[in-house]
Amino acid sequence: MEKVNVKYLASLRKAMKDHNIDAVVISGTDPHQSELPPMHWRGREWLTGFASVNGTNGTAVVTDKDALCWTDSRYFIQAEQQLKGTGFSMMKEDGPDAVDLIDWLVEHVDEGKTVGIDGMTFSVAYAQRIQQACNDNDIKFNADFPQFDYIYPDRPERPKNKLFVHDEKVVGQDVDSKMDDIMTQVKAELANSILLSSLDDIAWATNLRTANDIAYSPIFVSYLYVDDARRILFIDEEKITDEVKKHLEKYNIEIKPYDEVLNFVANLPKVNRLLIDPEKTARGVYDKIGCTPVFGGAGVARLKSIKNPVMLQNIDIAMDKDGVALVKFFMYIEENAHTGKLTEVGLGNLLRDLRLADPSCVDESFHPIIGWNAHGAIVHYEASEETDFTIEGDGLLLVDSGGQYTFGTTDITRTIAIGNPSDDMKRDFTLVLKGHIALACARFPEGTRGAQLDVLARQFLWADGKAYYHGTGHGVGFFINCHEGPQNIRLNENPARLEPGMVTSNEPGLYIEDKYGIRTENLIAVEKWKTTDFGPFFQFKTLTMFPYDKSLMDLSIMTPQEIEWVNDYHKKVYNRLSPLLNEEEKNWLAEKTSPIITK
Amino acid sequence: MEKVNVKYLASLRKAMKDHNIDAVVISGTDPHQSELPPMHWRGREWLTGFASVNGTNGTAVVTDKDALCWTDSRYFIQAEQQLKGTGFSMMKEDGPDAVDLIDWLVEHVDEGKTVGIDGMTFSVAYAQRIQQACNDNDIKFNADFPQFDYIYPDRPERPKNKLFVHDEKVVGQDVDSKMDDIMTQVKAELANSILLSSLDDIAWATNLRTANDIAYSPIFVSYLYVDDARRILFIDEEKITDEVKKHLEKYNIEIKPYDEVLNFVANLPKVNRLLIDPEKTARGVYDKIGCTPVFGGAGVARLKSIKNPVMLQNIDIAMDKDGVALVKFFMYIEENAHTGKLTEVGLGNLLRDLRLADPSCVDESFHPIIGWNAHGAIVHYEASEETDFTIEGDGLLLVDSGGQYTFGTTDITRTIAIGNPSDDMKRDFTLVLKGHIALACARFPEGTRGAQLDVLARQFLWADGKAYYHGTGHGVGFFINCHEGPQNIRLNENPARLEPGMVTSNEPGLYIEDKYGIRTENLIAVEKWKTTDFGPFFQFKTLTMFPYDKSLMDLSIMTPQEIEWVNDYHKKVYNRLSPLLNEEEKNWLAEKTSPIITK
Repeated sequence: MEKVNVKYLASLRKAMKDHNIDAVVISGTDPHQSELPPMHWRGREWLTGFASVNGTNGTAVVTDKDALCWTDSRYFIQAEQQLKGTGFSMMKEDGPDAVDLIDWLVEHVDEGKTVGIDGMTFSVAYAQRIQQACNDNDIKFNADFPQFDYIYPDRPERPKNKLFVHDEKVVGQDVDSKMDDIMTQVKAELANSILLSSLDDIAWATNLRTANDIAYSPIFVSYLYVDDARRILFIDEEKITDEVKKHLEKYNIEIKPYDEVLNFVANLPKVNRLLIDPEKTARGVYDKIGCTPVFGGAGVARLKSIKNPVMLQNIDIAMDKDGVALVKFFMYIEENAHTGKLTEVGLGNLLRDLRLADPSCVDESFHPIIGWNAHGAIVHYEASEETDFTIEGDGLLLVDSGGQYTFGTTDITRTIAIGNPSDDMKRDFTLVLKGHIALACARFPEGTRGAQLDVLARQFLWADGKAYYHGTGHGVGFFINCHEGPQNIRLNENPARLEPGMVTSNEPGLYIEDKYGIRTENLIAVEKWKTTDFGPFFQFKTLTMFPYDKSLMDLSIMTPQEIEWVNDYHKKVYNRLSPLLNEEEKNWLAEKTSPIITK
Repeated sequence: MEKVNVKYLASLRKAMKDHNIDAVVISGTDPHQSELPPMHWRGREWLTGFASVNGTNGTAVVTDKDALCWTDSRYFIQAEQQLKGTGFSMMKEDGPDAVDLIDWLVEHVDEGKTVGIDGMTFSVAYAQRIQQACNDNDIKFNADFPQFDYIYPDRPERPKNKLFVHDEKVVGQDVDSKMDDIMTQVKAELANSILLSSLDDIAWATNLRTANDIAYSPIFVSYLYVDDARRILFIDEEKITDEVKKHLEKYNIEIKPYDEVLNFVANLPKVNRLLIDPEKTARGVYDKIGCTPVFGGAGVARLKSIKNPVMLQNIDIAMDKDGVALVKFFMYIEENAHTGKLTEVGLGNLLRDLRLADPSCVDESFHPIIGWNAHGAIVHYEASEETDFTIEGDGLLLVDSGGQYTFGTTDITRTIAIGNPSDDMKRDFTLVLKGHIALACARFPEGTRGAQLDVLARQFLWADGKAYYHGTGHGVGFFINCHEGPQNIRLNENPARLEPGMVTSNEPGLYIEDKYGIRTENLIAVEKWKTTDFGPFFQFKTLTMFPYDKSLMDLSIMTPQEIEWVNDYHKKVYNRLSPLLNEEEKNWLAEKTSPIITK
């Protein structure tokens, strides 16, 4: 059955002809390289039909003969289905049958022909890789082909949500101080000004937020220019309230229209040295810059990643609120699991309601992953009407979810038993838990990188011939993106060092295809431990407050130290959450956190 | 007091003037980028006076004003002393006061002036970095200034030692098969021929060895060219015996004079694509290549690093022989420590004699590190007449040593107590041992890199606020260099994966300045463990056979599993070594390997 996308594709090919473009590469992101772009920049989804409200990852290529959409292994099944009848075929970005997009391009476009992109939706770095490959193969390259301006008549507008000020008492650092830190970074990179494109960097720098510009993160569409004399926010004026205007005035931040950024960078004095991050800045912006661009600026992400003591205190508040919502949630499941009426989708809605009941919770921090048995084994499972499982019988329920509280962003996974879990389930749960504990307990010298610690979380699974393939920990923002850099804890090397104040997840897991999935996740913050003759040493503070399912623990493979760690943690959870609970909830939590007694 | 080096320096400056060179960079290595070059290529040592029979690491720079010699932190004290009165000053390559040589160069050489090097003693990659920096600063660059040809009249000749064939029954792979493997690698890198410069690669590929071309490794000075039709060894003819000639003929390897290599590469057919490793090939060779050079070739080091089952069996023989020498050595120490007559230098000589008593032991695999108490804390300590300690009183003796047996290369460190060790010594010894055991017991999926496992060996020290700064494990050759790549187990990222057959050391340590040093080292080989639903998993087989000092173990911080591992290992050591020992030795070993009994 032919879908409407076939028509869109035909109009795209006409536009290509009109503009002498033989092949077009179509980005799935926006001028800010956002992980989840606003609808205005979801043209690739509109064109190909491979789409979801929560965003997808995909890059399309269209020539006169071919129409292809690359995506990663999380989306292979969904993309294959959605692309049927659209004229597009799926290509794999990773896995054994992966095809490199740029390799494909230069093999299928003839010498002398022209490849076009919309430079506003490609990073400088990615566009450069395409252009270089074109040059090497005598193919022309045009970075100024904004295809959706020609073919997407009902394109959604840019989001117009109002900003609000993120209370500086909660943030612990005012905008002047952040601007000073930024300019110190700028000068360290031998520049004298900076253009920030990354929306989480801008929200962090300005202590401003909004809701709903982008799903699951309170960031807003804008650019920010800073030098010693000027601070300019490029933003749609409708987004500015009186309160925000006052805030901006207080910190000498001028407002200019969002689209003005291009003229502005074009007219910067020649002597300016403008720092931009080539991975985060649009090629279309770069092409306009009238002064010397300096590549760098990743230092701002590092500044953002280091949470100050005030933020860390407030994260504790967010964690308590989150813990309370989860107590209500898991109590409800326990009481109702036998009814056979609980479904993955229904539980997701309930959990959202429970979190948003707190006035400081603005949104979820991502679409919750609620997977019953076999669905738990799909790492990025997203329950929908079509896939929805009813919770019945025996097994494991995996719940990975989080909230955007003004006090901080949360992200937690718990796996619980329903009915009678098997011995395999218990053993696997315990192996995952042992790794989770080993990472939580790690102590390490200054300078240690996440990739060095990753094995601590995997070692017990590996020793049992088992493995998981995702990272053990991602950086987490503060009432901002749930995924942020520069640090992480992964198999892959990442030169970013773990520094006090950085928050990451600690989430080992195990996935038994078609059977069950296990993941146990807390957020942890790097903190100073002590300085010895061997220099400064760091450790992790566990931030998340919610018990693990004791009924899933195989005590025969746990050490006395591990059991003691669980008991200590559970005691802390009870002490922190119980003052916020009613009697019934308190009793439930007391039972869930009661000490494990061993002989 | 002025040393003779001042005269050498003057003649160098005259040669520079004669050749229009304003600054010269002088390499400390040879055309093969050897770690320990033959005396013929120790011109930098001769010139600067910073020298030792075992080789030093240093690169000199001379201008009309300055004469400097860069070295690394292992040599700061030695270099500073030896450079006194030579006209040279020391510069630091690493540590807090490090100065980058190339940065220094471009800051101190004026525009339009000329930097010269002897291209034969610089790798393509290093020379390129110097040249690029010169270009960026409008400095001229001349890679053809062989300074020692002009100023070093009594320069030692190239080594003329005879080769011998490394018995193919011991090696387990004949030369034809190795050449096939090499050509498969060459074609995988889209080349059709290869020039090997690295001496250990050539010794491996030809199954030939010598003694004394280079200290501590049975490799020999040569180049090897291979394509589908020809195999050519460039070597001084004096080195070839009749036996070797027959061996070369059998495998269709032509012999050409060593110096002929330059003409040969110059005259290669234009269509040739010659694979060279830019880190291992001399710039002087590269400059002569008359066909298309292809950078790559690191795959040969990988082939060499993977020991086949025959080699692994033979390594067991080498380990048994080494264990026997060590039983005699440590028995002698135990019996004579009270006399106050044992010295570090004396013990080093004894150990050498004990190893070389076995006819299959051709050399030590490095200069032994024998450090009593405070000397043990100097990681690369080299006992000499001047520094020699007498072993007396209480403390720790660290012995790091190895042999070049035709059955394989050994490298082992044991730290033993003399008299009454302190509780701190015992605790630290045990923390090091726990890390050593954790690494020895690691199981891990295919694809794992050494840097991922490194923390296993450090974790217990870190948790005690302690650390060591050297790598945990280096690759080890097979009757060849004691240090080889591509794999290692280090803090620093290295993309090389651990593959079955690769041998590395497992040598965590701890160094308490001015007090004592601890290191515990075995060699371990990666081997297949089993394949599960999660793919192939690997483990380590411990190769080295010698007991740990039980008297240093603090059992209160060891787990039952760790104690069991030690007991199992000790049992194996006894079973393997005892048939090779006399009654007295056997009794000694029985006591040293008797099981640790815990309640």
